[in-house]
Amino acid sequence: MRTTRVRLAQAQINVTVGDIKGNIERILEYVGYAQRAGADMVVFPELAVCGYPPEDLLFREDFLRDSSRAVKEIGARSVGIIVVVGFPERDRKGNIYNAAAVLAKGKTLDVYRKKHLPNYGVFDEKRYFVPGEGTTLYHYGKALIGINICEDIWAPDGPFVEQSNKGGGLIINISASPYHAGKTLERESLIRKKAAKEGVYVSYTNLVGGQDELVFDGGSFVAGPGSRILSYAGAFRERLLVTEIEVPNVPSEKRTNKDKARYVELPFLPRDARSKERPGKVKRLLGPAEIYEALTLGIRDYTRKNGFSQAVLGLSGGIDSSLTAAIAADALGAENVYGVWMPSRYSSEVTEENAVRTAAGLGINFMTLSIEALYGLYLSVLDKYFLGLKMDTTEENLQARIRGTLLMAISNKFGRILLSTSNKSETAVGYCTLYGDMAGGFAPLKDVPKTMVYSLAEYRDTRSGKIFPRGVFKVAPTAELKHGQKDEDTLPAYHILDKMIKEYVECRKTRPGKGEFSETVRKVIAMIDRNEYKRRQGPPGIKITPLAFGRDRRLPITNRYRSL
Amino acid sequence: MRTTRVRLAQAQINVTVGDIKGNIERILEYVGYAQRAGADMVVFPELAVCGYPPEDLLFREDFLRDSSRAVKEIGARSVGIIVVVGFPERDRKGNIYNAAAVLAKGKTLDVYRKKHLPNYGVFDEKRYFVPGEGTTLYHYGKALIGINICEDIWAPDGPFVEQSNKGGGLIINISASPYHAGKTLERESLIRKKAAKEGVYVSYTNLVGGQDELVFDGGSFVAGPGSRILSYAGAFRERLLVTEIEVPNVPSEKRTNKDKARYVELPFLPRDARSKERPGKVKRLLGPAEIYEALTLGIRDYTRKNGFSQAVLGLSGGIDSSLTAAIAADALGAENVYGVWMPSRYSSEVTEENAVRTAAGLGINFMTLSIEALYGLYLSVLDKYFLGLKMDTTEENLQARIRGTLLMAISNKFGRILLSTSNKSETAVGYCTLYGDMAGGFAPLKDVPKTMVYSLAEYRDTRSGKIFPRGVFKVAPTAELKHGQKDEDTLPAYHILDKMIKEYVECRKTRPGKGEFSETVRKVIAMIDRNEYKRRQGPPGIKITPLAFGRDRRLPITNRYRSL
Repeated sequence: MRTTRVRLAQAQINVTVGDIKGNIERILEYVGYAQRAGADMVVFPELAVCGYPPEDLLFREDFLRDSSRAVKEIGARSVGIIVVVGFPERDRKGNIYNAAAVLAKGKTLDVYRKKHLPNYGVFDEKRYFVPGEGTTLYHYGKALIGINICEDIWAPDGPFVEQSNKGGGLIINISASPYHAGKTLERESLIRKKAAKEGVYVSYTNLVGGQDELVFDGGSFVAGPGSRILSYAGAFRERLLVTEIEVPNVPSEKRTNKDKARYVELPFLPRDARSKERPGKVKRLLGPAEIYEALTLGIRDYTRKNGFSQAVLGLSGGIDSSLTAAIAADALGAENVYGVWMPSRYSSEVTEENAVRTAAGLGINFMTLSIEALYGLYLSVLDKYFLGLKMDTTEENLQARIRGTLLMAISNKFGRILLSTSNKSETAVGYCTLYGDMAGGFAPLKDVPKTMVYSLAEYRDTRSGKIFPRGVFKVAPTAELKHGQKDEDTLPAYHILDKMIKEYVECRKTRPGKGEFSETVRKVIAMIDRNEYKRRQGPPGIKITPLAFGRDRRLPITNRYRSL
Repeated sequence: MRTTRVRLAQAQINVTVGDIKGNIERILEYVGYAQRAGADMVVFPELAVCGYPPEDLLFREDFLRDSSRAVKEIGARSVGIIVVVGFPERDRKGNIYNAAAVLAKGKTLDVYRKKHLPNYGVFDEKRYFVPGEGTTLYHYGKALIGINICEDIWAPDGPFVEQSNKGGGLIINISASPYHAGKTLERESLIRKKAAKEGVYVSYTNLVGGQDELVFDGGSFVAGPGSRILSYAGAFRERLLVTEIEVPNVPSEKRTNKDKARYVELPFLPRDARSKERPGKVKRLLGPAEIYEALTLGIRDYTRKNGFSQAVLGLSGGIDSSLTAAIAADALGAENVYGVWMPSRYSSEVTEENAVRTAAGLGINFMTLSIEALYGLYLSVLDKYFLGLKMDTTEENLQARIRGTLLMAISNKFGRILLSTSNKSETAVGYCTLYGDMAGGFAPLKDVPKTMVYSLAEYRDTRSGKIFPRGVFKVAPTAELKHGQKDEDTLPAYHILDKMIKEYVECRKTRPGKGEFSETVRKVIAMIDRNEYKRRQGPPGIKITPLAFGRDRRLPITNRYRSL
């Protein structure tokens, strides 16, 4: 026999940060599934025991202690199967490692420590962890297996290459890699190339689920040496993916301790040949479908994991609130979503009809609360100080804040999370009101540019019959905070604006859209720079681009840097 | 002659992040002062050219290019004097260093690169910088001088020790070290001991000024080998501190290149003996006086550097808003501060009198805006949905949000920054309303516990005659959002609460105040944990404790970890 067969189960699970008890249960549930599926080994994502990213919880002794105890508890149940699970490990000196426990025979056989700690983008791992050292390989039958964690597989001369070079025929990577549009496929194609280059099998197991601003997309798979994908778990849902892998054996003289690697023996139970079943085909998500699912999972998990079951939002009859309502309905059930139409003297019949028909189309709850009387009263209360001064954005903000206050009252009274409907284009240039339309517990579209809002609404509309009235797509974007107002009176057209935002924010170009738009560019950049203070007080939202506002892009509020 | 005399000027300056042009001007101004004072060398703080912390501005090519150009420009003016100034340096490979330029003879003589990069607490330097390597010493006359940056002096076997061991007689450290209560003295006493232990002179030059949530306190000094402080620049203000230091000469055989250090020759201009003048005594600030000055500088700089000259705040007649008004008046001038009294049916005569008399005592502007009619109207608008439901915190939040909306209208209309008056105790347990009393551009007391609010008000009161009416101190803390409400109805007494917050938040004890308070402890910890979402949307405020909410303490909002 020239290969050793590994029946490998990958548990793409959705855990909750800090819910160690709940996470243990979930992990043991999947260990059970894997056993019933006849797996030799089951693999869980990075830091699955405590959730990712735990941030400063890692500075708590009780949190680390509880995480270690969880590993012992899972270990005690790891009999007749090998379990690989991510957890934060503290050594006797007090150093903390991002680690993978290798459990079998009812105990911990070994612990692998992550060597490459990402400290860029949304990651701060050097704040917490000490990097691991050395190279470890695991004997399984006559084959060698390497285990590593997330970034370890991306580092050019990192553990992935070391383990492959030392005879590892199957490399197991456990990850907690957050989503952005297209990343599921990007990752897969990169690892496919790596597997082909080193001539090894790679098992890539990623976390799934929403955590604050991040969505982990899952998309776990096994890649083979011939640039082939053996199996794929799909994105945005939990899944146990079982794959039979024929790992090439390594000649016994190569399985010795001559080089500087550590070798650890895993229990090997030769079994009868098992089913030749192949995991069923999973439909891949592309373009708007993928993003839509990411947003749905993001809303669902933020809401559920923070103890809410219902949501409320303002329906303006525009595209942003219509799309937000649709995603919320898909995430939480239409009966759990409350849309509020809050007209003023500046509201049009078209937008009212849009709001009413959107709510009806989605089957969500609908209510009307006019802000007209409140707006009038505020103006008269403030009149003695404003006397003689012209109307300006103050009065526009006032209307937005009345709406925010009404929505928060409903949120507070009924325990429904308020969803803010601001999109990335508005958030970028500050075309939104702090404590007004920015108010909310969560802002699902925070990282979705306006042009993509349209694509997502079209996608939703074609997916299951027309839901949105055509007026939603046709009405020119407007905040309806004064007569005849159009967004494009003060902003460039959205297809131009979104391009600039992408270049300046996401691509970090310092002078986007050279040449012809120079005056507009100057204005847009100034708006983006100036509005950092607003973004800092906005609710969290789901990252779906390679560079979102928030942890990805850390700028001082007090910042006089102007390059143009 | 057994010593080489260095007339050293330390420029404790207040720069603005990103304002490279303005910072160059400020630096050159101080180079001029130093020249007129006959200094041989003038030293500026860490990253003085671009301000600290520049955060992701460091990912901008134009920002790095402009910073390098700034160093050239300052270099060209460094004639007849040696200038040491902090800047971000990029090498040809694209690595970025936290560096100190050594300028003389009209050019850059050398660049020192920081070796120890803090990546804890409020610091993220490993996100940006690559650590420097090797040891450098500078020949000055027959003495050797070492230069290092901030953390380099604290690392146990770091550059400070290396440079001292290799004959450095004067070690120059440039820092950007943020303030917390008592830190000025702490730092001084630690460096004093280090100087004594190594038998060297240490020049410690720190930045001064506010930057978002941080205040840099300055407090620059020169420590001598006998544990002696030769000179001290004082805290919270700009200052050029000039000190004559007799640095012991190093025998020529020890000034060679035998060991692995680099040696760089600085221009030495032997001059006549100069004045024996000693820098004048500077009064040291202690306790509440120190904190009060930190807060004043923090408000002044946040306001000024973000383009505001006036502030508005709600005056409730309580201690928090009274103190905030006082600090704002001291920071911006009483004529630039607007206090607004916004009574409702729940407001008492005592609090009204407190508000009126506080405003009068401080000489700030005062206005009254009743929220009563607005509150009534909101209740009637919401009535059709709330019908039959009992009053709860919804109605309390509503009042707070009406006040927030009125204050924001005044802020928007007149371009005055709104100061939120929430203190650390309230912020910790969420005893404050999002978009209500939490609304504002800046929250000066965000990191000041309630008990310290009283001490600071007492301090302000005794400093310049009674200003606050006694009622401000006597009235039991209350939000006045319902009849007969007292904070202590739902919270433990503040002296107990503040102790718990200190232990749980600042000291990271997982089980504060053991034993007798266990039920209360459980409740308080749950409140602190649960309210992360509120804090995340609050305005920035000044860090004055060793561990403030914000960048110091990074916790997920979605977090089910409960240790108790």
